[in-house]
Amino acid sequence: MDFAYSDKSKQMLASLKTFMADNVLPANRRFHEIAHTGAYPTEVIEPLKAKAFEAGLWNMFTPELEDDHPGTRLTNLEYAPLAEEMGRVPWSPEVFNCNAPDTGNMEILMQFGTPEQKEKYLDPLLRGELRSVVGLTEPDAASSDLTNLATTIKREGDEYVINGRKWFSTGAKHPNANLCIVFGVSDPSPEADRHRKHSFILVPMDTPGFEVVRDVPIMHHHAPEGHCEILMRDVRVPVDAMLGNEGDGFMLAQARLGPGRIHHCMRTIGQCELALELMCERALERSTFGKALADNANIQDWIAQSRIEIDAARLLMLQTAWRMDQEGARAARVDVSAIKVMAARLQTTVVDRAMQVFGAAGITPDTPLSYLWTWGRAMRFLDGPDEVHLKVIAREELKKTKGAMGANLAHFVPPAR
Amino acid sequence: MDFAYSDKSKQMLASLKTFMADNVLPANRRFHEIAHTGAYPTEVIEPLKAKAFEAGLWNMFTPELEDDHPGTRLTNLEYAPLAEEMGRVPWSPEVFNCNAPDTGNMEILMQFGTPEQKEKYLDPLLRGELRSVVGLTEPDAASSDLTNLATTIKREGDEYVINGRKWFSTGAKHPNANLCIVFGVSDPSPEADRHRKHSFILVPMDTPGFEVVRDVPIMHHHAPEGHCEILMRDVRVPVDAMLGNEGDGFMLAQARLGPGRIHHCMRTIGQCELALELMCERALERSTFGKALADNANIQDWIAQSRIEIDAARLLMLQTAWRMDQEGARAARVDVSAIKVMAARLQTTVVDRAMQVFGAAGITPDTPLSYLWTWGRAMRFLDGPDEVHLKVIAREELKKTKGAMGANLAHFVPPAR
Amino acid sequence: MDFAYSDKSKQMLASLKTFMADNVLPANRRFHEIAHTGAYPTEVIEPLKAKAFEAGLWNMFTPELEDDHPGTRLTNLEYAPLAEEMGRVPWSPEVFNCNAPDTGNMEILMQFGTPEQKEKYLDPLLRGELRSVVGLTEPDAASSDLTNLATTIKREGDEYVINGRKWFSTGAKHPNANLCIVFGVSDPSPEADRHRKHSFILVPMDTPGFEVVRDVPIMHHHAPEGHCEILMRDVRVPVDAMLGNEGDGFMLAQARLGPGRIHHCMRTIGQCELALELMCERALERSTFGKALADNANIQDWIAQSRIEIDAARLLMLQTAWRMDQEGARAARVDVSAIKVMAARLQTTVVDRAMQVFGAAGITPDTPLSYLWTWGRAMRFLDGPDEVHLKVIAREELKKTKGAMGANLAHFVPPAR
Amino acid sequence: MDFAYSDKSKQMLASLKTFMADNVLPANRRFHEIAHTGAYPTEVIEPLKAKAFEAGLWNMFTPELEDDHPGTRLTNLEYAPLAEEMGRVPWSPEVFNCNAPDTGNMEILMQFGTPEQKEKYLDPLLRGELRSVVGLTEPDAASSDLTNLATTIKREGDEYVINGRKWFSTGAKHPNANLCIVFGVSDPSPEADRHRKHSFILVPMDTPGFEVVRDVPIMHHHAPEGHCEILMRDVRVPVDAMLGNEGDGFMLAQARLGPGRIHHCMRTIGQCELALELMCERALERSTFGKALADNANIQDWIAQSRIEIDAARLLMLQTAWRMDQEGARAARVDVSAIKVMAARLQTTVVDRAMQVFGAAGITPDTPLSYLWTWGRAMRFLDGPDEVHLKVIAREELKKTKGAMGANLAHFVPPAR
Repeated sequence: MDFAYSDKSKQMLASLKTFMADNVLPANRRFHEIAHTGAYPTEVIEPLKAKAFEAGLWNMFTPELEDDHPGTRLTNLEYAPLAEEMGRVPWSPEVFNCNAPDTGNMEILMQFGTPEQKEKYLDPLLRGELRSVVGLTEPDAASSDLTNLATTIKREGDEYVINGRKWFSTGAKHPNANLCIVFGVSDPSPEADRHRKHSFILVPMDTPGFEVVRDVPIMHHHAPEGHCEILMRDVRVPVDAMLGNEGDGFMLAQARLGPGRIHHCMRTIGQCELALELMCERALERSTFGKALADNANIQDWIAQSRIEIDAARLLMLQTAWRMDQEGARAARVDVSAIKVMAARLQTTVVDRAMQVFGAAGITPDTPLSYLWTWGRAMRFLDGPDEVHLKVIAREELKKTKGAMGANLAHFVPPAR
Repeated sequence: MDFAYSDKSKQMLASLKTFMADNVLPANRRFHEIAHTGAYPTEVIEPLKAKAFEAGLWNMFTPELEDDHPGTRLTNLEYAPLAEEMGRVPWSPEVFNCNAPDTGNMEILMQFGTPEQKEKYLDPLLRGELRSVVGLTEPDAASSDLTNLATTIKREGDEYVINGRKWFSTGAKHPNANLCIVFGVSDPSPEADRHRKHSFILVPMDTPGFEVVRDVPIMHHHAPEGHCEILMRDVRVPVDAMLGNEGDGFMLAQARLGPGRIHHCMRTIGQCELALELMCERALERSTFGKALADNANIQDWIAQSRIEIDAARLLMLQTAWRMDQEGARAARVDVSAIKVMAARLQTTVVDRAMQVFGAAGITPDTPLSYLWTWGRAMRFLDGPDEVHLKVIAREELKKTKGAMGANLAHFVPPAR
Repeated sequence: MDFAYSDKSKQMLASLKTFMADNVLPANRRFHEIAHTGAYPTEVIEPLKAKAFEAGLWNMFTPELEDDHPGTRLTNLEYAPLAEEMGRVPWSPEVFNCNAPDTGNMEILMQFGTPEQKEKYLDPLLRGELRSVVGLTEPDAASSDLTNLATTIKREGDEYVINGRKWFSTGAKHPNANLCIVFGVSDPSPEADRHRKHSFILVPMDTPGFEVVRDVPIMHHHAPEGHCEILMRDVRVPVDAMLGNEGDGFMLAQARLGPGRIHHCMRTIGQCELALELMCERALERSTFGKALADNANIQDWIAQSRIEIDAARLLMLQTAWRMDQEGARAARVDVSAIKVMAARLQTTVVDRAMQVFGAAGITPDTPLSYLWTWGRAMRFLDGPDEVHLKVIAREELKKTKGAMGANLAHFVPPAR
Repeated sequence: MDFAYSDKSKQMLASLKTFMADNVLPANRRFHEIAHTGAYPTEVIEPLKAKAFEAGLWNMFTPELEDDHPGTRLTNLEYAPLAEEMGRVPWSPEVFNCNAPDTGNMEILMQFGTPEQKEKYLDPLLRGELRSVVGLTEPDAASSDLTNLATTIKREGDEYVINGRKWFSTGAKHPNANLCIVFGVSDPSPEADRHRKHSFILVPMDTPGFEVVRDVPIMHHHAPEGHCEILMRDVRVPVDAMLGNEGDGFMLAQARLGPGRIHHCMRTIGQCELALELMCERALERSTFGKALADNANIQDWIAQSRIEIDAARLLMLQTAWRMDQEGARAARVDVSAIKVMAARLQTTVVDRAMQVFGAAGITPDTPLSYLWTWGRAMRFLDGPDEVHLKVIAREELKKTKGAMGANLAHFVPPAR
């Protein structure tokens, strides 16, 4: 339970902060100007990537790199403050090759890819040359229950044929995107084990029949990389595009989500810190009716409550990261659900307060708050809606209770008569 | 305290519902397609306006029309269900010439305009030929304290010269917009009565020096009519462009805001009803883990709480409308503040629940929820932030207490010893 | 939808306020001193009852009195402000013969009693000579599901034999209590219609085998009349003690609860008003760190929010009362559930704020707040827990949706592809 | 930042759990039966104290014991799980000589007492023979602002003369209580430094003029040890009864509150755990409408949210304890305020949910929940109301902002134009 940041982590955090201040923040406005035109700000991103690579701020998201892979090999706990820092500028993780969903995709390729798959996809991903997406959620199904998903992956001779519709495929508009990791039903037979019916398959995005139908803005916000809807009609890939074995889909989905979820939480906490800092600065700067906003007790309460809630959430996040490092992602499954719920809710709460201090400016693109608030709302769906995670936590809690059923009732509550 | 809708109101509501179903809803998708390109959907709006005019569904927002003005002359109470209905399709009020800020602008022109001003501006507004905006809020000041505003209106000979920057001027991008009612300091002398320092002035938008700088999307949402930033540099208008007398600004601002605020609340309640209906339909339609969403007790709680809260808010809104009709907008000032706070908060609350039932679809433009949620957040600033209204209410309550100070303490709490 | 108080109601309210100020409030401290000793403050109550009877402030809770019964015959709407006023001093309703559960018991006796039952029980109840209790909830069952109840009413010859345990039988410690209306299973056969298995029966409390086991304080508060646990072992009553017919239990339970629930809500609203008034008085009276509590923006927010919420709840309550008057208690069943949930939650919310303004004094018996807060918590169980009422409301809402299924989805949401 | 419990702490926790199960829980009902009569359950407590002393479970609350003092010398972090465990049975801390306010009183005596004072008061306190109280809060002043306090400590020759009224003096009804540490104004001169005007003085409770006026139940709950009101009229003590120097009052008050506050938080968290466990047990045990309460999604949400919130609060508490151990109570001042606010609010939240699962039983004395809920409400005043602590936190946060004013605004928000 030692959550202190290691020296390595602290040194990298210092480098990262300097890098952000010297390179990323000055480019922020230009990034948004280009993004606003609908183009991808490649001219901003690529030079920064080169610099970050040189600065050794690269692939910080995972300790599991092989010897010849570039990167820093930080534990989840060591990565936490770095992810917080990157979260403050939501487009910055790509600069450091630490952006979703590439990180998650790299992770499952590292764990489950064949040498050929690694060479073809993982290596260029780790070098930042290739971008990838994931095809999981479907528009016509309540996707939190994976058994509702309808995309099919059907073997025909030496090929798999894929049909289906996905959405929220983040990154599909990125100019360098050319890999979609697709989740689908590979064994539709009713008698199949429900945890062995699905598979993940690697699909180059230029395969015939693979179509990016549209970008789906999240809360009206068009991300330059896109959160896209994808239609696959008779998309054919060779059998060696299967990731792991046929039927491994469920198992891989579980493995993939753990670290991805906590990275989101780390960035969220960084974004909440930014919102709190902005709230304080604005409260000191602006006055109404003859006194600074910061002198109003209601605004002071908002500031203090935000401080408390952020600090508590950070500790829960650090504990989860620490447990993932110590005991593995599977052991930390319920912890991840807990911080996922807490962090997502925190973001709308804290940013809401900051917006209120900013007045109408808070809902314009002149501050990062409108984006952070709407993104916080989206966070309550990303990697599963709150309700699914709450159910996971409750089930675990009730399971513990069943193990010692009535232990407390017996001591504290009179028996029925 | 009779909040029953009159027969006239009920008949018009029936007509309006038919009109919405037959004409507005079928045009909804086309409207958004055009708006999405950045153009104004004139081809959708204008034919509907003509039809609505013919159907007698026109200028329903005010009873104060002169004899030769087209319109229905409904009380605020009678208007309430109609505004709710229009609220369900946020762009529809213009079809019926009932959209903000034109309605508020027409109201102060009716009350305070000279015959010449009425002929020039009010008549074409009432006919739906002219669109207008208002220049009140400023980006560089905490505008809820009007004394912070910096725009100047300076008399020079037979002209007023206007300098300043405004934003959230809704409608400034509308192709028919050509009137901006500008609020500014007309008497900057320190010894001036602080409630007599400001004026409203009528500014044609094609006056030299008047510039629409940019559209400011609200929560990333670009409205086709725009919520614009306006820059005025040495804008000159003749002295007869003054609305009321020099120094009437505060008084007019008060007069203008009452009905406008409650119209927003009425539409909000209609939008909450829509969100609740959508939530129920979706909850019945979708299943996870083998049962309909509607069978989950947490979702049932959300539905029931939404029903309770909407009904309570509607009653508070009706009571306010009724008081405005009976005693005038000034007498209902605190009531308006109360329903303004309640309705704006309700919208994010109810729509948030609906979104959660929709899953990720709730944050896409495929449902109206993402717009309604973010608009609900904006509502907490429109016509003044919550905190200003809460202060108004608290002050009134404390004033009542002072009138009977200690009345209850004396009976219920032992005296200090 | 006319919620204005009638002239009759207004005049009685004026009389009642005078009576409270002149007679009840001055006796408040004495009442509590006696109650604190564990005795019933008969010496306080009885003279006040005589005065109230003379003043015509008697049996105000129901319009359904027969010609020779004393009382005022007010509608529910007319009764609302009177119940609010009485709520301010929680023990005062008995002074006016308007206290629970006697009012509910009188109501079902009026509706369903035989002439003999009325003569024996109703008449002395209406005169205020007899006090009564109700035996509904049971300690060993989740009583919100009536089918869980275990008390049996078994016919043996000319008698019914009753066995079972009840609790929360309010009033059983009252010196004048001598009637318990007991709910139990009269037809235990598995094939019996589940809505015809239960009955209500009239049990004199001095019947052998009827035992008041203990008083159960609600949140540590010992009411002088008691909320008691009752044990019935082979309690025998003649067959004419059956209320209505055997098997009418469910129907009578429904009939009984409507008015009783809304009376609680009315009193709750009066108690919230008192809490708000006390909060304002204290906020003006006390200072910390050099300024009055009332000058702090957070406390102003609490005051304003309380004002808004109380006003909205009152309107929902008035609408429910109006509907009960116009369409009957059955038609208003869902409305009653709604206001029941809203009012109970309001009480803990508003009183919590008032306590915080009072500081530690708020949790002592020196103010009424500690009682009002804990009573508000109890209100969330009285006449059914929130969750049962929310379920009723949700079910109704979903039923409406089913009638027009997909109406909105069709217009607002793209179809599945 | 290592929050792992030490081996010593873990071993003691195991011993304590065994002790609780074997000795304390079996005595719980007897304790309450005696307490209910108004007497102090000495016959329960004293034998348990002797056993606990023998078992080495004694004076666990502080590491600062001198060599010849009995006790375990645990750090705050080591003490945390033990205090949680004791919190589950609110009267149990006395068994281990770890109860408020004796612990706080022992702490300041250890730090500031003269050898004579230690011999007279500290030694018997550490042996558990003497009980003590503290006279801080006053009924007639808003005591969160210490400058409002009115009790006077006036030097006359070789004596101090004390006059004033205190309340919430916990423990004053305890049969062994005979020391009150009184806070008062020792230098009333207007020119005195406001942080040097007050002193703490040691007053034997049998001194003439010292009167325990009454026990003040907290939320109707009469604790057997009492939360008492004390009146001091010309109470005379020798000059060597002064604790520290005249004028040290503020400094001592600060020193005294830190550990005391966090002990409350630790116990609170233990109580929340108990409430959650009871909630789960009951939810599994009871059924309505054909399914276990635990199968309802709303109840599952309550369970999961409670789990998340308790875990987050515990981490914040552990971090605070750790900081106190590492950097001292003064350095952790803001941390203490943060956990104080969070823990107190958590208790009403979590226990509220548990009560709702228990139904009406939750508000009876048959479960510990009614006590825990009302005590949670009291916790929001103990050691200062939420608002005072929130102000402390906000001030600190704004101070940090001032140090880097505008740092973020400059990067993220366009400058005023």
